[in-house]
Parts: sequence; C-alpha cells; structure tokens
Amino acid sequence: MRAARYYDQEDIRIEDVPDPVPGLGEVLIRVAYNGICGTDVHEYYSGPAWVPTDVHPRTGVSRPVILGHEFSGTVEAIGEGAQNVSIGDRVCVETVYPCESCERCTAGMPNLCTTFAVHGLSGPGGGLSELTVVKDSMVHRLPDNVSLELGALVEPMAVTTHAISRAEVVRESSVVIFGAGPIGIGTFLGLRARGVTNIVVVEPSPQRRVAIAHLGATVIIDPSGGDIDERVRAHTGGDGADVAFECAGVAASLADACSSVRARGKVVIVATYETDPPLPATALLLNEIEVVGCLAYAGNDFPETIALMAKGGYDVTGWVSHIDLEDLIGSGIEALRAGRAMKILVDLARG
Amino acid sequence: MRAARYYDQEDIRIEDVPDPVPGLGEVLIRVAYNGICGTDVHEYYSGPAWVPTDVHPRTGVSRPVILGHEFSGTVEAIGEGAQNVSIGDRVCVETVYPCESCERCTAGMPNLCTTFAVHGLSGPGGGLSELTVVKDSMVHRLPDNVSLELGALVEPMAVTTHAISRAEVVRESSVVIFGAGPIGIGTFLGLRARGVTNIVVVEPSPQRRVAIAHLGATVIIDPSGGDIDERVRAHTGGDGADVAFECAGVAASLADACSSVRARGKVVIVATYETDPPLPATALLLNEIEVVGCLAYAGNDFPETIALMAKGGYDVTGWVSHIDLEDLIGSGIEALRAGRAMKILVDLARG
Repeated sequence: MRAARYYDQEDIRIEDVPDPVPGLGEVLIRVAYNGICGTDVHEYYSGPAWVPTDVHPRTGVSRPVILGHEFSGTVEAIGEGAQNVSIGDRVCVETVYPCESCERCTAGMPNLCTTFAVHGLSGPGGGLSELTVVKDSMVHRLPDNVSLELGALVEPMAVTTHAISRAEVVRESSVVIFGAGPIGIGTFLGLRARGVTNIVVVEPSPQRRVAIAHLGATVIIDPSGGDIDERVRAHTGGDGADVAFECAGVAASLADACSSVRARGKVVIVATYETDPPLPATALLLNEIEVVGCLAYAGNDFPETIALMAKGGYDVTGWVSHIDLEDLIGSGIEALRAGRAMKILVDLARG
Repeated sequence: MRAARYYDQEDIRIEDVPDPVPGLGEVLIRVAYNGICGTDVHEYYSGPAWVPTDVHPRTGVSRPVILGHEFSGTVEAIGEGAQNVSIGDRVCVETVYPCESCERCTAGMPNLCTTFAVHGLSGPGGGLSELTVVKDSMVHRLPDNVSLELGALVEPMAVTTHAISRAEVVRESSVVIFGAGPIGIGTFLGLRARGVTNIVVVEPSPQRRVAIAHLGATVIIDPSGGDIDERVRAHTGGDGADVAFECAGVAASLADACSSVRARGKVVIVATYETDPPLPATALLLNEIEVVGCLAYAGNDFPETIALMAKGGYDVTGWVSHIDLEDLIGSGIEALRAGRAMKILVDLARG
C-alpha cells in the first residue's frame, strides 16, 4: 500500500510499504480521509518532537513512522477477539493511546499518561496510508448521518470538546475565542452546539474571519484595531468574558485573553506555542484569573463529539479542502504553512 | 506627629505632619507597629507604582503620601457614627479599601475593585506615622491573646489566608511552597494551622531555610541541588503535589512550581514579578494544570487569620525584627533589599 512516512525534518516520503495485518484485539481499517494537523506541519519543519527521535519508550516504534492521526475509514478486517465493530462499519479512531495502567490512566486522565503514544506520530501505523491497524478499543462507529469526511474531523473536534469541558462552560456563559483556525472553529461550533450564544471571535486574518462568519459567528473582531479587551467587554458584559479560549498560540493572544476575561474568569489554553509566551502576571493577579491547560481528549469526548455531529452541529463548508496523498508536501504541508488552506483532508480512496 | 512620607523614587522623608482628626464614621488609631512590605521596597527603588504618579482617581490623594499598610495599634478617638470599636481597643486594619459599589465589590470581590485604594500607598494616611485615621468598617479588634506585634502581621498573613482559600486546599492536600520569605512563611503557618501536614518548602537561602525549619517545616529543599520536581514528588506522592504556592516571584520558581504539581494540580501565584515570567506552557498542557492568580484579601480572610492567631497558629520567632521610624531607610528598606532581614516591624511607640 501507499503511505506517507516521516524520516526526518523536511523528509517525508510517499512510498510503498507492506499491508498491515490485524492481530489479537485489533482491526484493519481502509482509510477514507486523514486530516493534516498543525502538529504534522511542526514535525515536518522543526521535528522530530512527537515523532520519536530514537525509540518510543512504550511502543518501541522508531523512524520512519507512518504519519496521520486524524482519520476515518471502513473496517476491512477484524483480528481475533475484537468485538467493538464489524466488517464494513464506517468508523473514526481515537489516536492518542495511553498505557491504561499508570496512576493517571486509572484515575480517568488517560490523555495525560506520561508514556502515551499517538497513532500516526509514535505508533505502529498512521492514517496517511491506505490501510492501518488499530486497537479495537480505539474505534468508534459513525452514525449513518455522519459522513466519512466529518468522521475524519472527530479527532480534532474532540480536542475542542475536551477544552470546552475543562472550561466548565454553561449555556449562559459569555465566551471569547482567540484564533479562528480549525481549533477555534471547532471550539465555536462545539459551543454553539451546546446552546452557548454569547460568543466573540478574535481573528486577524480576513479570510478566516469570513470563514467563521459563514459558519454563523456574528461578533468577530479584527485585533489589528487595538483595544481588544474593551471591544470584547462591549459584547460580553461590563467585566469581560467568563471564559477565553486561546486557540491562536501566539503571545499577543494570550495577553489579550487574560485582559478580556472577567474577575475570576478562565483562560483555557488549547493552542501550543513555539516558545513559552510571557505570563501576563498583572492581569492574572489583578483579576484573579485562572489559566487552564488542556491536552487532547479523554473519557466521553469522542462519543459526545460524534453525537453533536449527528445532530448537525458541525459544518465543513468554507474551511475544509481535499488533496491526494501524493500531493501531501506541496498541496498539504506547505499550503498550511503558507496559510493557503485551513483544514486539509487527504483523500486516501482517491489515490 | 512624625510620619514617613513618599515623595518619589528613593525619596522618602521622615518628617513632622499635622495630627489627623477622625471624621464621620472614622476612628483615630495610635499606631503600635507597622510592617515594611516588599511593595514598600519596590516603591522606594522603582516606584511610584501603587503610589499615585498623579492623583488617585478615587481618593484624590497625591504625593507626598504617608506609607505603611501593615499595622496594629490602639483606638485613640472615635468620629461621629463609628460604632465598630471603642477607645482603648487593640486593633488591626484592612488597608485595601474598595469602592463598595462597583460590580466586583457587590459580587463579593472587593479585593478586585478596579478603583481600590490602599491606606499607606494611595490613601489619606498610613501606618508609618504615630497616628492615623481609617474608616470604622476597616478595623478589626484583636483578641486578648493576640499581641500588637502579631496584630501588625494580620494584613500580610491575610494575603496568605486568601491564597490558601483560592487554592481550595484540604487537610489531606500535598503542598509545595516556593520561597520562604514572609509570604512563604505565612502560607506555611496558615496551612499548618488548618491541619495540612504534607508540606514541602523550596528555598535557596540557607538563612531562610533555617528560619522556616525553626517554625516547624520538616521537608525543605535547596533548589540549587537541581531535580526539584523529582525531589518534591518523593515527598508528595508519585504524581506531584496537589498545589504549589509560588511565593518567590522569580521565573525559575514558576517553572519549578508547574513541574512539581500532579496532573490537574494547581499553581497559585501569591508573588508579584518585576517582569512577566515565561509561562511554562509544556508543563501546563501535558499535565492540564491550572495557574491561579490571587490578590490581597476579602470577605472572611481577616477574621479567619485573627482567629488562627488566637489559637496559637502563628509565631514571630526568627523572622520578625524591629526598628525605629527614624531608621526606616537604612535599617528597614535597604536591609530588606540586601536580604539582611525578613520581616521588619517599625515600632512607632518607641520613637
């Protein structure tokens, strides 16, 4: 089969590899779509980071690794003992896999497992290949009215579901989202699907402002106009937003997020940073805010995301585009880096 | 009367000023002791910051201002309508005073009032004077078994009481305190008074390690030995402390605090920083920790602190020293800056 394998920084090769075979408790999936994540872009230009530099301590995986951790597909074969799905099922996959035995895993925080691996970064396969084998327990069946295209988005959208649950948002909450990339969009759609209506979006790119407006955002601020905290306050009530989601990953957004929330408000960091941003200590203290970290997904995040998709809460219009596997570098990774696309799905069946 | 007045950076003068007279709802206090706060030291060397550069928007106060916001004394006279205390009462004073009418004040967060003033920084008087006039509602009577010396420490100790309440610490919590200056000591004594026993202290100064050991700390780490998070973990359980209190105000301590807490642990920032420290984003995300800001005190913090003092929870041995008002600069502010003292009380009755 064809697969995209990561060898090193700026060295990803599309090549032929042997078809994988499902073992005990495993299933073989014929991949339909695999989304390219910002992490993949980072790995290409400045990795390996999540890809093992040497050997992954738990999976024993070393480079080259097959990339791709956001995918959907159809069950093609089932290994002995796998009972979660049937051949022909349309599925998506939890690609963060924990050890299931450490203190954090047993305490319900598998996403914080200190030895977790990611299928498509440090696992034995990935979604950027025609076929891939995963553990039965990682697979979720898609309802009939959730397309395989949306199915490939369950993984990144589950990240935002997790962030929303960490934020303890309620329907009446006022919220500001910094950054309208895929994670900002997912946060917006996830909040709206939960009935939250008081949402402000802050995004400098005109193209992204248009995209999120098309998805239903009504209050969208261009930060280049300055006075962001004042403009957020004008929409969220006198003292600022209850919660800010930092989905931009830049120091200025973190500073604005800390200035835009109310007294004892929360700033939830969903983004990652290339270098540690300054902590806006004065805003943190004078307003007694909380800065909350979150990572990946756990517990009910996947089923909840799929259920909201089945209810029509997610829409791919205007921010999701498609490419072939053979065009991964130029039309995929380079296009994302250059800002020419927002979320790219690699169409594995089209190749 | 004699008073210490702040004119400008490195210009504090001990001089004669007219005795204040209590007005409606006010009381006149003969000051016994006034503690020198780190804020006073900052104001002297790099202010004015909390002292108004021009005119305080609410109090209308401008320089020179009488300094001193940590004090105890005896009620000398009572203005019309003041009913909270009687002449001769031994008292301490809440020196942060809010507007009492804004959204934050009415929501029970007077410490976050956006126009609050501080008696002794931006108010009409301060504790570094023989007499001072304050609002009746700011005054708390000291129980018979709480000395005037301890009374002058209620204000800074209430800051730590507030931080402990923000941290939602319970008796079984494991805690690490970064910094064993007055705020770190207050946090330690406050936690111990609440029955918390699993406390690790991290402090680079040998003198401060000795002082907090004398007060009863049993696990004290010298950070110069490195591997701080591992050494904290050895005492707090496998995954790290439930809560870290950052009382040091340096970037390295914030980084170590974020590495020393368990998954979903809290880092409570009690210190202030000269410049914004880097946010340890990787630790924040991989462990889903919360960084919590806190400021001053509110609600029940003063009465709770006084009650714990009455139960014997606080001890001034080994970290509190005394000077005369006339020696404020050399023996007070300069000594604190040079690390020659930890908490200095100015003895106003001794002058």
